[in-house]
Amino acid sequence: MEQTFIQYMKKIQHYNEALSVLYWDMRTGAPKKGLEQRANVIGTLSAQVFELQTADELGNMLTTLEAQKETLPYITKRLVEEVREAYDLNKRIPVAEFEQFTIEKAHSEAAWEQAKEAADFAIFLPHLEKMIAWKKKFIGYWGEKNGSPYNTLLDQFEPGMTTAILDDVFGKVRAVVAPLVQQIVANGKQPNTDMLFKHFPKDGQREASLELLRRLQYDFDAGRLDETVHPFMIELNRNDIRVTTKYDEYDFRSALFGVIHECGHAIYEQNIDESLTGLPLCTGTSMGIHESQSLFYENFIGRNEQFWAYNFPLLQQYSLQQFGDVAVDDFLKAINFAKPSLIRIEADELTYVLHIMVRYELERDLFNGSLQAKDLPQRWNDLYEEYLGVRPQNDAEGVLQDMHWSDGSFGYFPSYALGYMYAAQWKHAMDKDIPNFDELCATGDLAPIREWLTEKVHRHGALKKPFELLQEGTGEGLNPTYLTAYLQEKYTRLYAL
Amino acid sequence: MEQTFIQYMKKIQHYNEALSVLYWDMRTGAPKKGLEQRANVIGTLSAQVFELQTADELGNMLTTLEAQKETLPYITKRLVEEVREAYDLNKRIPVAEFEQFTIEKAHSEAAWEQAKEAADFAIFLPHLEKMIAWKKKFIGYWGEKNGSPYNTLLDQFEPGMTTAILDDVFGKVRAVVAPLVQQIVANGKQPNTDMLFKHFPKDGQREASLELLRRLQYDFDAGRLDETVHPFMIELNRNDIRVTTKYDEYDFRSALFGVIHECGHAIYEQNIDESLTGLPLCTGTSMGIHESQSLFYENFIGRNEQFWAYNFPLLQQYSLQQFGDVAVDDFLKAINFAKPSLIRIEADELTYVLHIMVRYELERDLFNGSLQAKDLPQRWNDLYEEYLGVRPQNDAEGVLQDMHWSDGSFGYFPSYALGYMYAAQWKHAMDKDIPNFDELCATGDLAPIREWLTEKVHRHGALKKPFELLQEGTGEGLNPTYLTAYLQEKYTRLYAL
Repeated sequence: MEQTFIQYMKKIQHYNEALSVLYWDMRTGAPKKGLEQRANVIGTLSAQVFELQTADELGNMLTTLEAQKETLPYITKRLVEEVREAYDLNKRIPVAEFEQFTIEKAHSEAAWEQAKEAADFAIFLPHLEKMIAWKKKFIGYWGEKNGSPYNTLLDQFEPGMTTAILDDVFGKVRAVVAPLVQQIVANGKQPNTDMLFKHFPKDGQREASLELLRRLQYDFDAGRLDETVHPFMIELNRNDIRVTTKYDEYDFRSALFGVIHECGHAIYEQNIDESLTGLPLCTGTSMGIHESQSLFYENFIGRNEQFWAYNFPLLQQYSLQQFGDVAVDDFLKAINFAKPSLIRIEADELTYVLHIMVRYELERDLFNGSLQAKDLPQRWNDLYEEYLGVRPQNDAEGVLQDMHWSDGSFGYFPSYALGYMYAAQWKHAMDKDIPNFDELCATGDLAPIREWLTEKVHRHGALKKPFELLQEGTGEGLNPTYLTAYLQEKYTRLYAL
Repeated sequence: MEQTFIQYMKKIQHYNEALSVLYWDMRTGAPKKGLEQRANVIGTLSAQVFELQTADELGNMLTTLEAQKETLPYITKRLVEEVREAYDLNKRIPVAEFEQFTIEKAHSEAAWEQAKEAADFAIFLPHLEKMIAWKKKFIGYWGEKNGSPYNTLLDQFEPGMTTAILDDVFGKVRAVVAPLVQQIVANGKQPNTDMLFKHFPKDGQREASLELLRRLQYDFDAGRLDETVHPFMIELNRNDIRVTTKYDEYDFRSALFGVIHECGHAIYEQNIDESLTGLPLCTGTSMGIHESQSLFYENFIGRNEQFWAYNFPLLQQYSLQQFGDVAVDDFLKAINFAKPSLIRIEADELTYVLHIMVRYELERDLFNGSLQAKDLPQRWNDLYEEYLGVRPQNDAEGVLQDMHWSDGSFGYFPSYALGYMYAAQWKHAMDKDIPNFDELCATGDLAPIREWLTEKVHRHGALKKPFELLQEGTGEGLNPTYLTAYLQEKYTRLYAL
């Protein structure tokens, strides 16, 4: 029975790999005329996966295995728990309602695009209201988790996460970051960033990206780099973890820092233990933990002074006229430039968390009842003014900027900020074991850093829950002071505050 | 019922599209470590397709529809016929035997690779014997078609084809080609081909290939060009027809003529009528007809003098030092160079059919009983000596050179030569409707040529059988004299015989 169950779950993963190849292909150059038929192909395979995931046969296997839970090997036991959770979530929603939701979601996504184009929230509002209503209905089926409707959503992206925790940690982070940002603005001195926006030919960016990935220990025998419009990392199977990027010839950071970020995601997936091969446990354990790996690479390695002491010549090699006479110190100041702005995905390392807090508070209030969708633009703008000191002039640069809400992904945004706090906490714990972190960056020897992360995070895949990983790997629960201390020290120094 | 049947067949095509993307991806850069798991994915999806193709549900639908055949729309009627044929072929073989065959086939393919590497037929012989035995067993289930076991195999690649027809037409072609080849050898004068083997940088070859594809009317909104090891064309769906090529920096013909060849295959698929979208009829009707399109493009367009009068500057543009001071006439003589050789895939336009005839005769005698597998190397070498005047020195350059037999693809080889005869016959028929063919090539206006082929061949997909297409499109059955006349005229002129 145990083997039948495992084979059944592996078969689902086979369909998921096929779906992942189809998605990857669609986003890396599939010819446009073929996409209409492609949507049907994805529809058929997705329906097959859903059928397998909700089949009574699976329910029966779960019940049988749960009865003998204590005698099961650890991996199988965890597999049963995870599959049971997903099975119940899937089964509780009536199929007809889920199909209706899927159709309305497609309309909502299209309406959001239109609305953003027209900078007109009114176009999106009725669809957004439907998405919220659907999610509230689903929460009714799923049941409230940890005491509030919004916590049910949070739990699906970050198991165990609650508004009580987030209110606390976000409050502590904001108490440090907001004044820092104000000081930088008041101070008025900004580094010269001209060199960032000079011409860097695409071919050179691609070569530099490939070399950087190698240096970061990305395994090209188990992955590849391709070009896309909205960069992503995708897991096809444990030994096929792909990254993508986008080349902007007048802002190389899009490709280079994007690649470092996606590399962090990819290295997590490439280093999951072999024993989980082919199982649904062979993936990152949560959105927040995944983001902790990408942000560890992007910020704690990719903005490290010594890392660039070692790697800056690579940029000079591929864009000599841009970087030939730039001192690495000036480059470091430029890439650590911080300034309040309106658009999340263009935000810097310091102000980014404030963008997330705005979204979190709005989602929380939408689902816990104190905010109506129609009032979002006003609240959005007020919060931006309060936290960042800037106010959107229209909905496109305000409440319409992100697509997440259009497909009903409420509860996702906090993962980005959680990942940042986790990353700082991993770094703090790592410093005890690897006191010569800067020296390793300076010599390009990143293997010990990857190995530490593999030991504490990667290898476990989804075997352990986020809080369990964090507790075991750092000796404590979520603690935002590592992030605030890091930001305080770094920005006080860089801006001589 | 009709709609249910059509939806059922479309669903199978969805899985086939997923499989095609998986194959395409494996052959255009999928990371090597991921391939082991990928094989399982392909296994699961293939099993699902086979299950759908052999389900009793499908058999019942076919029986019901066959009872009302005369009232069905034309496309549905043809669909029922084609699906019935495949259904019976699939159903007659016991599943356990087919699975055993599949396993032994994998071993046979591996053994062939080993044997070729070691130039030792003995390694491959026991596996080849098994493949032949399996096919003979299957023929027992399928039944003899057109009076002999080998005809059953021929019919699966080229419906209606028989050894009686092939003996006749191959005899007629050989009667012209063999003496021509002997004359060229006796004559002893060969054009200068040095310019073919000069350095042509890969990036330039890629750019020239892309431009050539555009000029040949390949639709990049419904396709793309990628790099691979063994070039192929693959149909994902009617609007996603991909080509691949291989770049040899010291023999540009591999990429450029390869691209023209695959373009012929691709244009066939891109121009099938929209009414066949999503159905298994939305594909080429046979191997031979498919090859007639690739060879039409490769030889009748791609070796046309006026075509190069128009396109030679493109080669000069991307490889100036190679072609800058070459006269287009000398280039034409070089690319039409003919000389007896041992390796089929490196053979020239004139001698190629002789290579095919060797394989045909061996297959025919193997299945109709007068030849044993163990005697193949000797017979192979004797036939090469007889037809081409050259004798292999070992099995790697002899009987082991092609992989087709290792996976049991007997009956396939003749398609290559049939395609060539068909192509010459299309060209002859086209000349009546398009008397200014050369002028169109000279001005780069290839649309009327593609439109003619679309009208006579492409649009029908698999709605019509090969002989039906040929009869309706050219007014007669297979007639090899168009090929022999073409070769006679061309090579007598080029070699001043």
